[in-house]
Amino acid sequence: MRTDKKNVQVIEFIAVGSELLSSSFLETNSLFLAEKLEQIGLNLTFKTVVSDRWAELQQVIRTARERSQIIFLSGGLGPTEDDRTKEVLARVLRRRLIFKPELLERIKKRFASRGLVMPASNKKQAYLVEGAETLENPNGTAPGQWLETGGKIFVLLPGPPPEFKPMVENLVLPRLENLSQKKVIKAFFKITGVGESWVEDRLKEIYQLLPPYLELTILASPGDIQVILSLKIESPNQEAKRVEELEKIKAEISRLLGDKIYAFEPKTLEQVVAEKLIKLKKTIATAESCSGGFLAHRLTNIPGSSNYFKLGLVTYSNEAKIKLLGVPKTLIDLKGAVSAEVARAMASGLLKRAKVDLAVAITGIAGPGGGSQKKPVGLVYLALASSNEIKVEKCHFLGTREQIKFQATQKALDMVRLKLLKLEHNSGAIKRKAS
Amino acid sequence: MRTDKKNVQVIEFIAVGSELLSSSFLETNSLFLAEKLEQIGLNLTFKTVVSDRWAELQQVIRTARERSQIIFLSGGLGPTEDDRTKEVLARVLRRRLIFKPELLERIKKRFASRGLVMPASNKKQAYLVEGAETLENPNGTAPGQWLETGGKIFVLLPGPPPEFKPMVENLVLPRLENLSQKKVIKAFFKITGVGESWVEDRLKEIYQLLPPYLELTILASPGDIQVILSLKIESPNQEAKRVEELEKIKAEISRLLGDKIYAFEPKTLEQVVAEKLIKLKKTIATAESCSGGFLAHRLTNIPGSSNYFKLGLVTYSNEAKIKLLGVPKTLIDLKGAVSAEVARAMASGLLKRAKVDLAVAITGIAGPGGGSQKKPVGLVYLALASSNEIKVEKCHFLGTREQIKFQATQKALDMVRLKLLKLEHNSGAIKRKAS
Repeated sequence: MRTDKKNVQVIEFIAVGSELLSSSFLETNSLFLAEKLEQIGLNLTFKTVVSDRWAELQQVIRTARERSQIIFLSGGLGPTEDDRTKEVLARVLRRRLIFKPELLERIKKRFASRGLVMPASNKKQAYLVEGAETLENPNGTAPGQWLETGGKIFVLLPGPPPEFKPMVENLVLPRLENLSQKKVIKAFFKITGVGESWVEDRLKEIYQLLPPYLELTILASPGDIQVILSLKIESPNQEAKRVEELEKIKAEISRLLGDKIYAFEPKTLEQVVAEKLIKLKKTIATAESCSGGFLAHRLTNIPGSSNYFKLGLVTYSNEAKIKLLGVPKTLIDLKGAVSAEVARAMASGLLKRAKVDLAVAITGIAGPGGGSQKKPVGLVYLALASSNEIKVEKCHFLGTREQIKFQATQKALDMVRLKLLKLEHNSGAIKRKAS
Repeated sequence: MRTDKKNVQVIEFIAVGSELLSSSFLETNSLFLAEKLEQIGLNLTFKTVVSDRWAELQQVIRTARERSQIIFLSGGLGPTEDDRTKEVLARVLRRRLIFKPELLERIKKRFASRGLVMPASNKKQAYLVEGAETLENPNGTAPGQWLETGGKIFVLLPGPPPEFKPMVENLVLPRLENLSQKKVIKAFFKITGVGESWVEDRLKEIYQLLPPYLELTILASPGDIQVILSLKIESPNQEAKRVEELEKIKAEISRLLGDKIYAFEPKTLEQVVAEKLIKLKKTIATAESCSGGFLAHRLTNIPGSSNYFKLGLVTYSNEAKIKLLGVPKTLIDLKGAVSAEVARAMASGLLKRAKVDLAVAITGIAGPGGGSQKKPVGLVYLALASSNEIKVEKCHFLGTREQIKFQATQKALDMVRLKLLKLEHNSGAIKRKAS
């Protein structure tokens, strides 16, 4: 590598394509690239989106060459006239485009393998900027290019994410790893059942303990919080000691947040619940009013869900609650459909009907209409019935109709998770006793 | 306005914030801005994301000043030390920052209205770049700024979308409208039940008819297609004639796509179905196997859904299909749970049980497991029962588990929509006969 390691600082990503400047398209390649770069301790410094017009693209490449050391260009490698990324780059660098017969052969073969003849326009894709190496594209006709010149690296990649992503992962990252001695190790904590301020408050003391090479980030959305610890390692000889430090902080966070943590990796709550249900061989059924089937939908989004999910009822009307779940009509008349008593009756009725290990019921007011001063929008009762107990919880969620539906299902899943934890713990205790 | 109208060509958007260069945050303000600009015939030429470090931000603002006429800066107007957008801009323009007592008063009042005292650090937000006008921010403490200088316009806006968006809409667009005589009128067609290539094929003849000021875009995702017609109007005296042309093309597209169009505005299919159910005073119930409650979830995402949605059953197990829907066990044994016959029996059983006008049933294989050569992943049977008929359809969807679930619910909603259209048409015919 001719590029000096100490100079690897400024990395720029340029997305080429007029459509990426419109309101209909969101450029996401840069997020994937940023994630992969972070893993090897590198960060993007500039991100630019530019149309495929010659003058503007030329201006952007010139600016990037002046201010950045590694320049990624994504898009504009196709066969049409509007695809001119490599043409403009060649002009800026005052280099020629070189025809590569072996690339042409590969493109022709790709068409032939589908029983097609290569259109003449695709010949354009067999040219590289003088001095560039080919980065093979297993998922498309546009090859990528890697060009080192004047202390700069230009990396040309196709725009479609299914082509861009594997090329970054398999071809670009290994080359950059050679440039970077740095590395980042991440630890994840997924949390539910508490608010962002609760988490912040709990982690206050941790913040003060953090060494400069450890970063703590909290990402919060209603009903779901993610805490990410990022450990920076600047050279291999630091690694062992710093990882030890990371483990200490991880243990401390686990202690502080306790069973509010539902996963130590970036998983969804339904994934965690599904895994536990399968592990403990437990079955589940749902009875939903205000969440309208969303809980069943989430539980059945996991492949293999028919192993644990047996029945879901969306008892939106009172009649359905009475007929299908055996909720007494007098109870609904007396307490209202949105009440602790009706939630309890729904769960216990469902448990009997569905013959499952766990029956969850949700009743509440998702809004925006239907609320009153006594029973406001966002009021939700949840009940979880099993052979030995029925647990009922009252919640008051804030947000839009969809946010309230989500938080209600999140709470229901969390009640199931905590129940399964208890079952797991008890069965462990019994086993220990027996042995 | 000092800025020459003919010069309004190059518009640049700069998002300021180190977090926007990481893998965890997606910058979306630019999409909103692009959409609003498109409505008045303007387009973004460059989009840049930069960290909040002084040198880099300065470099980006300098570049923008050289190449663009209107420069939007979003973010970096907060009270912390890392917020330095206006400080850097003032340095680049060699201008001072001017303290505005009236802004300080407004910020103090904002805190006071919540019973809080303004922290000293917020005083920073009461400074404007010399010569700039205030853009009031009703949703936060950071005021925006509008600065015209040397034929350029700088627009400074806060980064949080709930503050950014209304300010663009209410304060920035009216000012830009004065600069632009142009206007864009859009027409939308939302389509389901056919593939993208079917739509493209049907619209082939239209493509050739399109005048240069009319643009046709097709956005497709599995199960849902959007066709957008954008009419450009460069001066008010063109408007009447061009709108007439748009109407002609709209009528032609409507004729070509027929009842595959479910909406002429950017609505979801469940919204359209909900509106029709309410209008015709019809009720509905769902019985889902492979879609796992997603259909019920979509139908209950619409506020007021308790008016039409009565019951949803997620009959994942065969036992539930037999007990709750009265599907004969022998039929399941003979034909399999994924079959036209079982779909039909589910819908007719549900119609009886739920006492609704329309009963929809879905049974299929969402994958990734559970498929066979005879019954592959993606095979879905759907049935719609009403008092006078049962309609059954067989589909084969491609994609991931979630995409197959979505397409199954999309097809079910579309069957309901077409049935409601028929009912609407018949009742209209009867009324016409009676009168």
